[in-house]
Amino acid sequence: MIEVSARHVHVTQTDLEALFGKDHPLTVRKELSQPGEFASEERVTVVGPKREIANVLILGPCRAHSQVELSLTDCRSIGIATLVRESGDTDGTPGCKLVGPCGEVELKDGVIAAKRHVHMTDADAEKYGLRNHQIISVRIETDARTLTFGDVVARVSPKFRLAMHIDTDEGNAAGIAGDITGEITFS
Amino acid sequence: MIEVSARHVHVTQTDLEALFGKDHPLTVRKELSQPGEFASEERVTVVGPKREIANVLILGPCRAHSQVELSLTDCRSIGIATLVRESGDTDGTPGCKLVGPCGEVELKDGVIAAKRHVHMTDADAEKYGLRNHQIISVRIETDARTLTFGDVVARVSPKFRLAMHIDTDEGNAAGIAGDITGEITFS
Repeated sequence: MIEVSARHVHVTQTDLEALFGKDHPLTVRKELSQPGEFASEERVTVVGPKREIANVLILGPCRAHSQVELSLTDCRSIGIATLVRESGDTDGTPGCKLVGPCGEVELKDGVIAAKRHVHMTDADAEKYGLRNHQIISVRIETDARTLTFGDVVARVSPKFRLAMHIDTDEGNAAGIAGDITGEITFS
Repeated sequence: MIEVSARHVHVTQTDLEALFGKDHPLTVRKELSQPGEFASEERVTVVGPKREIANVLILGPCRAHSQVELSLTDCRSIGIATLVRESGDTDGTPGCKLVGPCGEVELKDGVIAAKRHVHMTDADAEKYGLRNHQIISVRIETDARTLTFGDVVARVSPKFRLAMHIDTDEGNAAGIAGDITGEITFS
């Protein structure tokens, strides 16, 4: 129910072809919790002013705008001062270079640290008394690093499945190494 | 008042000499908030099974036991499965190799992710109604990543100065890039 998202990239079909060659399709490696979303076999290198990170996962399917989701630890490491943003809200965010086996792409913007959020269906939202885009708190109890995340966005759509998404910094701050399931408390 | 601790190492005099040469003293670069503690000019490479991290700060003065404080992001990156522990509580923790300009040291244990804590004087503890080793919660309000840290250890000593210490993962999860001062709420 709580999924720790590793760094990843979403790409447009155009950028995908620039990186992997003409008509290259994304290859499904693993279905994700959100229906239709998948981790692909394709990997790219994310290049910042200070350093680069190799082997960054591309999530599919292709989107209308390329976007790079890094932890703030990653951003500091490669020298990009980014912002905490909801997916898709990339106006004014920094860009970076992506390098694939067949070419590279210079993104003008799109590097974000993802704002933590909970995907839920309309039925879930009704059950918990929440509405789309409501800001909620989620308490996570662990052995040594219990915490309560504020500023969590409820994202409601009939296409979603109930799952909270946090990044690796947030997972580590809660003492969660990977995905966990269990009761979480919304407030 | 809230200090984000970067990865660092504490060393014994013996280990310091193995790394930097006989009778090498730690050179004070910057005094830290806790009286007597300082960041030194000396840096070492921390070597794990998967990868190494260069230029890791040594904090002084020397201690009775060498200890390596990394974020869980660092630990995963270099391939060490460590535990969240209070400083000094290193029994059963993993070790690593340290490499300096004059030699290297193989630590049998001592790699920890630091348990978040608040240093305070006896007067502070009395003011807030807390006692040494009490587990408290601390709420930090930021623009996009407000959160409440549970499992925070109150550490009370006349030798301390009031300051909360969190690591870089925890700072990033709260949207704090560096040290901040301001009112925090204990509960």
